[in-house]
Amino acid sequence: MNAERNDPRVFSDHMDTEDLNKPWEDLKQSIDDKKPKALILHVDTLIDSGEIGRAISRLDSDEKKTLLGLLPADVSAKLMESVTEAQAVELIKLLPTSDAAAIFNELVSDEQADLLAELSDKNAEAILDAMDPEEAAQARQLTSYDPESSGGLMITEFLQYREGQSVRDVLDDLRANANDYTDYDVQYAYVVKAESDELVGVLRLRDLLLSRDPTPITEVMIREPHFVLLDTSLEKLADFFDRHHFFGVPVVDDQRCLKGVVRKIDVEEALTGRADVFSMEIQGIIGGEELRSMPLRTRTTRRLIWLVANIFLNLIAVSVIAFYQETISAVIALAVFLPLISNMGGNAGIQAIAVSIREMSLGLLKPNELLWVATKEVTVGATNGLILGSLIGGAAWIWKQNPWLGLVVGVSMTINTVIAVVAGGLMPLILKRFKLDPALAAGPILTTLTDMTGFLLVLSFANAILRYLVP
Amino acid sequence: MNAERNDPRVFSDHMDTEDLNKPWEDLKQSIDDKKPKALILHVDTLIDSGEIGRAISRLDSDEKKTLLGLLPADVSAKLMESVTEAQAVELIKLLPTSDAAAIFNELVSDEQADLLAELSDKNAEAILDAMDPEEAAQARQLTSYDPESSGGLMITEFLQYREGQSVRDVLDDLRANANDYTDYDVQYAYVVKAESDELVGVLRLRDLLLSRDPTPITEVMIREPHFVLLDTSLEKLADFFDRHHFFGVPVVDDQRCLKGVVRKIDVEEALTGRADVFSMEIQGIIGGEELRSMPLRTRTTRRLIWLVANIFLNLIAVSVIAFYQETISAVIALAVFLPLISNMGGNAGIQAIAVSIREMSLGLLKPNELLWVATKEVTVGATNGLILGSLIGGAAWIWKQNPWLGLVVGVSMTINTVIAVVAGGLMPLILKRFKLDPALAAGPILTTLTDMTGFLLVLSFANAILRYLVP
Repeated sequence: MNAERNDPRVFSDHMDTEDLNKPWEDLKQSIDDKKPKALILHVDTLIDSGEIGRAISRLDSDEKKTLLGLLPADVSAKLMESVTEAQAVELIKLLPTSDAAAIFNELVSDEQADLLAELSDKNAEAILDAMDPEEAAQARQLTSYDPESSGGLMITEFLQYREGQSVRDVLDDLRANANDYTDYDVQYAYVVKAESDELVGVLRLRDLLLSRDPTPITEVMIREPHFVLLDTSLEKLADFFDRHHFFGVPVVDDQRCLKGVVRKIDVEEALTGRADVFSMEIQGIIGGEELRSMPLRTRTTRRLIWLVANIFLNLIAVSVIAFYQETISAVIALAVFLPLISNMGGNAGIQAIAVSIREMSLGLLKPNELLWVATKEVTVGATNGLILGSLIGGAAWIWKQNPWLGLVVGVSMTINTVIAVVAGGLMPLILKRFKLDPALAAGPILTTLTDMTGFLLVLSFANAILRYLVP
Repeated sequence: MNAERNDPRVFSDHMDTEDLNKPWEDLKQSIDDKKPKALILHVDTLIDSGEIGRAISRLDSDEKKTLLGLLPADVSAKLMESVTEAQAVELIKLLPTSDAAAIFNELVSDEQADLLAELSDKNAEAILDAMDPEEAAQARQLTSYDPESSGGLMITEFLQYREGQSVRDVLDDLRANANDYTDYDVQYAYVVKAESDELVGVLRLRDLLLSRDPTPITEVMIREPHFVLLDTSLEKLADFFDRHHFFGVPVVDDQRCLKGVVRKIDVEEALTGRADVFSMEIQGIIGGEELRSMPLRTRTTRRLIWLVANIFLNLIAVSVIAFYQETISAVIALAVFLPLISNMGGNAGIQAIAVSIREMSLGLLKPNELLWVATKEVTVGATNGLILGSLIGGAAWIWKQNPWLGLVVGVSMTINTVIAVVAGGLMPLILKRFKLDPALAAGPILTTLTDMTGFLLVLSFANAILRYLVP
């Protein structure tokens, strides 16, 4: 029998997605018709086809409210878990507190904490008050930790057994509670002392498989297991999972009592989330998150803050031009080369910024290694600067038939490229030492600097040999 | 008993890394002394402390060659697996073919394929010829697949049993080969037909735990399991693991024969790698990879290609200024506002590019939804454009005491921002439809466009009302 390409279980590139062009149209229709059963079916289908996020982003606020009002809380919870976090937060904010609380009761512990962390304190408090008290207590506990620490990343659903229990006890428990455990990542079980929650060992399921029933679990378990503390940072966790090929690591408090488990996948998700924020921030989206389904006001404000900050940086740079107006007036061709040289400086510097940020995040570079970076960048800057300077200087010479103009433009371009590349390489290290976010600050500060130095180099040099430039 | 912070097994933020400031110095010393035993120890310590990458990056080529010459192949293989892929490739290139082949024999299958894919065909072929024939055959097979497909991502180390076997057979095999299987991710075992490798089911280890020994595995296994084809793309795999909380998925060929397993972690790693490349490319590093330990020539060339391409784009833009030299000559203040307006247009447009690329990668936006993006961006562009235009127009008016100059500058800034934001939003969609990489191309094309439109708006508008501008 050959694999049939249209078998619904075959998941391949050949799956036709063109017919899902507007997956929200049926959903919109059912919202208008207010048919809960049809809606549950549509939502399930959209979750399965991976189109739920796009569909939700095409509904307006009223449609979203109506949809959540018609769905049972558990389906809404599943929906929240299937869309991006930013979308889930948007949806929660549309709901009355009691409805939001009902959905929160159905979410898994780390999702609860993640979403609560994104809401305003007042909003989060109101929802927690309306939640099932037990769920609320757990959620409150988790949200009290830094979301980028073990405490904030850990799950509280894990298997725990006590010293003195046997392999049979564990297997009996697994069998008896098989249904409850289906949502658990049952890779490891943790062993604590008989009389306290102090962690003493880790049981791998495969070792249980290979042991006879009456064996005490203390004989099978791994003793002195690796663990992390509640305040261990995301970086340290990433380091840990790089070094150890584990699916998860137990989290203990200061008394070494077991509090939760951080899974590798949660660390990876957090890192990906951070990389996403980083990638948005270097492109000028304050906060690192924007979806076009967000309200116009949110979208314009977040972008505007960064633009207005940039306008002031730009004004500083162009004030150099204002200072040299007379030089430009004498050699108008300089107005053509000013944006060119400053732009190219910015481009060259941003490459060096990228390499420094990357090397720091890979652990190949520490913020105090300024000299090493400067040495490595000055050669690259000089090489590329000379090549670019010759190109542009030559072009200027030919265009205006004036070798002196070529000299001014070429030399300025070369020096500005060296400055830009060295400054770009160093900028992320310096910002990091001042505990600033290189992703957000490095680019705008650098381009302001290279605009200023570029303008200054061209105009002061031109001013110095003005009599050779004026025909 | 309290957890002791200085217990070496406690892995927390409090770990002091300052004393590892120059972890390569001991290593360098041992390389100079040519002491293999000390080297093995140093390398192990550096791998454990996560400092191996930084240490290797501070050695020169001769030191790297000597180091690898002194290390046994299995330690070298461990080293290769502990540094970034770019570093591993660098190291391999330094070695004679026979030494490289000896190390490749010790690497796990997907590492072999990943590294071979990064070498030149000639280099890879030479290493394959010198490798153990069995290892080489497997590596050849894996490298024949697209590295961003199931075939390229899968591992070939997995557990396979046949219809007709019992739970006892599986447990006996697990017990007998426990040592061989320690490197396997033993979460699932796969069941194929008795007479062919056609996949018929998946066994979860926890289900084996809950079953009696004589039970046929066909009774315990999950029938009609999910699977993917050899050519399933990375995107589809990411989608798959988003939807299904599995640790891995079996890969089958067209006859539905089991070929390997793609693990969720491998898909996540590939996605992270791609995000890294993306983040480097939007900052102008061609190829998405540069380490400062690479040769100067490699580093300058990769950066230069992009800079030279940009210089030509920039020349197109500034040719607009060249065309309007007389207008600038009449109103020299315009030279100050030209870079300001074009830079701000670029900044505003890049924000919109970032949002489009992100929404496409989250599956919230398809490349054909141009109208939706245009509608969403025109309002943001108009709002922010009016605010920025008023700020800059007002500044120009006050500075030169000329309301007409304020009008020219303010209106140009407003219109240019709208153009930049709408064009920025659409650019990634259009590039994607032409199968171009939005990460690399969108930024430079957009800034060229906004430079041109910015210059053109200011200068043509100023030219039109020149008599009001000249005092």
